Amino acid sequence: MSTDDVVATYHIETSLPLERAAEVLAGEQSTGTFVRVARESADLRARFAAQIVSLEEVPLTGSSALPGTVGDPAERLRAVLRLRFPLDNFGPSLPNLLAAVAGNLFEIKELAAIKLLDLELPPAFASRYPGPAFGVAGTRRLMGRETGAMIGTIVKPSIGLSPSELAEVVTELVGAGVDFIKDDELQGNGPTAPLAERVRAVMPVLERHADRTGVKPMYAFNITDDIGRLEANHDLVAAAGGTCVMACINLVGLAGLEYLRSRSSLPIHGHRTMFGAISRSDQVGIAFGAWQKIARLSGADHLHTNGISNKFYESDAEVLAAIAAVREPLLGLSPTVPVLSSGQWGGLAHATYAAVGTTDLLVLAGGGIHGHPDGAAAGVASMREAWASAESGESAALALERSPALRRATEVFGPVRV
Amino acid sequence: MSTDDVVATYHIETSLPLERAAEVLAGEQSTGTFVRVARESADLRARFAAQIVSLEEVPLTGSSALPGTVGDPAERLRAVLRLRFPLDNFGPSLPNLLAAVAGNLFEIKELAAIKLLDLELPPAFASRYPGPAFGVAGTRRLMGRETGAMIGTIVKPSIGLSPSELAEVVTELVGAGVDFIKDDELQGNGPTAPLAERVRAVMPVLERHADRTGVKPMYAFNITDDIGRLEANHDLVAAAGGTCVMACINLVGLAGLEYLRSRSSLPIHGHRTMFGAISRSDQVGIAFGAWQKIARLSGADHLHTNGISNKFYESDAEVLAAIAAVREPLLGLSPTVPVLSSGQWGGLAHATYAAVGTTDLLVLAGGGIHGHPDGAAAGVASMREAWASAESGESAALALERSPALRRATEVFGPVRV
Repeated sequence: MSTDDVVATYHIETSLPLERAAEVLAGEQSTGTFVRVARESADLRARFAAQIVSLEEVPLTGSSALPGTVGDPAERLRAVLRLRFPLDNFGPSLPNLLAAVAGNLFEIKELAAIKLLDLELPPAFASRYPGPAFGVAGTRRLMGRETGAMIGTIVKPSIGLSPSELAEVVTELVGAGVDFIKDDELQGNGPTAPLAERVRAVMPVLERHADRTGVKPMYAFNITDDIGRLEANHDLVAAAGGTCVMACINLVGLAGLEYLRSRSSLPIHGHRTMFGAISRSDQVGIAFGAWQKIARLSGADHLHTNGISNKFYESDAEVLAAIAAVREPLLGLSPTVPVLSSGQWGGLAHATYAAVGTTDLLVLAGGGIHGHPDGAAAGVASMREAWASAESGESAALALERSPALRRATEVFGPVRV
Repeated sequence: MSTDDVVATYHIETSLPLERAAEVLAGEQSTGTFVRVARESADLRARFAAQIVSLEEVPLTGSSALPGTVGDPAERLRAVLRLRFPLDNFGPSLPNLLAAVAGNLFEIKELAAIKLLDLELPPAFASRYPGPAFGVAGTRRLMGRETGAMIGTIVKPSIGLSPSELAEVVTELVGAGVDFIKDDELQGNGPTAPLAERVRAVMPVLERHADRTGVKPMYAFNITDDIGRLEANHDLVAAAGGTCVMACINLVGLAGLEYLRSRSSLPIHGHRTMFGAISRSDQVGIAFGAWQKIARLSGADHLHTNGISNKFYESDAEVLAAIAAVREPLLGLSPTVPVLSSGQWGGLAHATYAAVGTTDLLVLAGGGIHGHPDGAAAGVASMREAWASAESGESAALALERSPALRRATEVFGPVRV
């Protein structure tokens, strides 16, 4: 196998013989027609055809076939298919790569399931795409949190606050000791709280805090907008002394993220909203494993992975696999920070740390901080103490003994997970 | 209902009481937490909360619940839900709109199905987004085809041709009388046939043809690439006298399409590759009806809808609904040209015309032209004669009597559809 090849891994289901289905898929996504046409020489096929690397039958999951599937349902089999694509077919361009590995193949009617699971990419992609400009180290430096889990929160209510109300919320949160605050993904650039007014309201609060403590908490302003507005939105944040911008990756597009990266002087907080649309089904779409590689190449310094015991549909195993995927080295890029959110609180620290073995994480708690019975400062303390305890190798039981804030948190959020 | 509201229509399935599920969804996508937080006043909720417009139970389809769904499967119901979102929540920004109507909602575990079907958008969007710059009229003018169906084809084999081989193929196709030729979506800007070399090979062929006939066929060069390269790619085509650029909408992103539109002096041929990833499942994702509105606002002059009797999974009914959706007026925008492709040939003209009632269509045939037994010129003639016959009100039987090229086509492609 050439070092210039791309290998894509899929789940497929089909009533065709598996080998035949794999050939249809490989053909559709490379030299490309069901029938041979003029000039489609054997030489051309040898150079450009996608090739089957491996094809391994796996058990059916019981999920129903995709709409429009043809073939005898009783014959249906599921398999993991790995296909090799010559890089020359598209060059090291992420959008053009996607045309091959994730293009029309989702519409093939012989496939009852077709999901892109993973991508192995050659070094040429890292030569073209520098990836995160800040990553773990740059983020820690900017927020003044050299060790331990980075503790953050989300502004709530998510929308509807006036800029002056927002300043009040941020004052409380930085007073509580958070490292990081983010806009909700629903908070864009609407008329009630335009980005420029949010920046004007928030930055003085952060600067005053920095004057007092020497540390400026990181605030991720959601600059998601039309591509042509991203640079101006970013510049507005940077000019005011902001240290982070947030982009909803699927709303500006992976290509939009890459565009922002090429013009950004700040870490990019990559939110995955709308990801469920392409990934929740086990029968169709693109899995996190493949998607996160493109997001990292495109420059996401922080990437949402969800957290264990979350309020969404993902199991702990899926979440832990997502965190591990983001932490896996990729073509020499700077490490991206996994962002754990949804239902997070101090009582999840020990279980999470036991599974991931690192504190190079940004842990976001909405309710876990805003909703602590003794207020936000106690919420932050409960999380910081729990994570420090976990990292030191203490048991959760000992953490509960030593941390009054964590003990109080259990009164609202239930028992600590071990 | 305010004229500034957005209404989004969904299919949902849930084991919660339907009304309760609708409220969870509306809450998550607007004022936003499952629990009330400080400053979430009744006034704020009244102004910013998404509201249920209607909720109508429909029969279950039999498709399995999305992974991670909670609740008793026996209680599961399906419904069409319409939600109203105040425009002030996001302003007339398409990316920020999507955060609300298609953001985290796909991950809600109480939903066994969640698919965005349609969007009703207020005029503010058309004030910000001018939509197609050329549309039907501009496309007809540029390709010199004032009336009748626009007949086009795709370069085959899709990838692997050298620029000189490409010039040969294009020479044959323009000689055959096509109005339009497009690159395959797999043909990007790879090292074998870089865009610059394709332009250099193809444009002289088109110009010589124009010198002879007075008409320059339209060639859609696939300029899909990183966002930062789109403008240069476009300029290269425009400078060489090209009259169309093609963008794979889901690969540059809807936002990337809008960015290209703002910098393009040529019609944009909008390819929908990878659309199946977000739309093929009936349980999750975004349906064509909603997606095409955003694509049109973002400036797609041509938009792929698939065609009847296609080789992909969609039924004729779905295809015809897609064509009708693209032809439906939208906020005063110029009409986008529906692009029918996949398995198209002359024998589908009468059935298609009977269903859509217009020839303001770009009909692309690969095999139907390249694979005609008497060659590409006969393939084009068979399609043009069939469409003219259909438009004139003739029966398909009469068309077969009058058109030798159509008769010969049936020997390969089977009987004419009526």
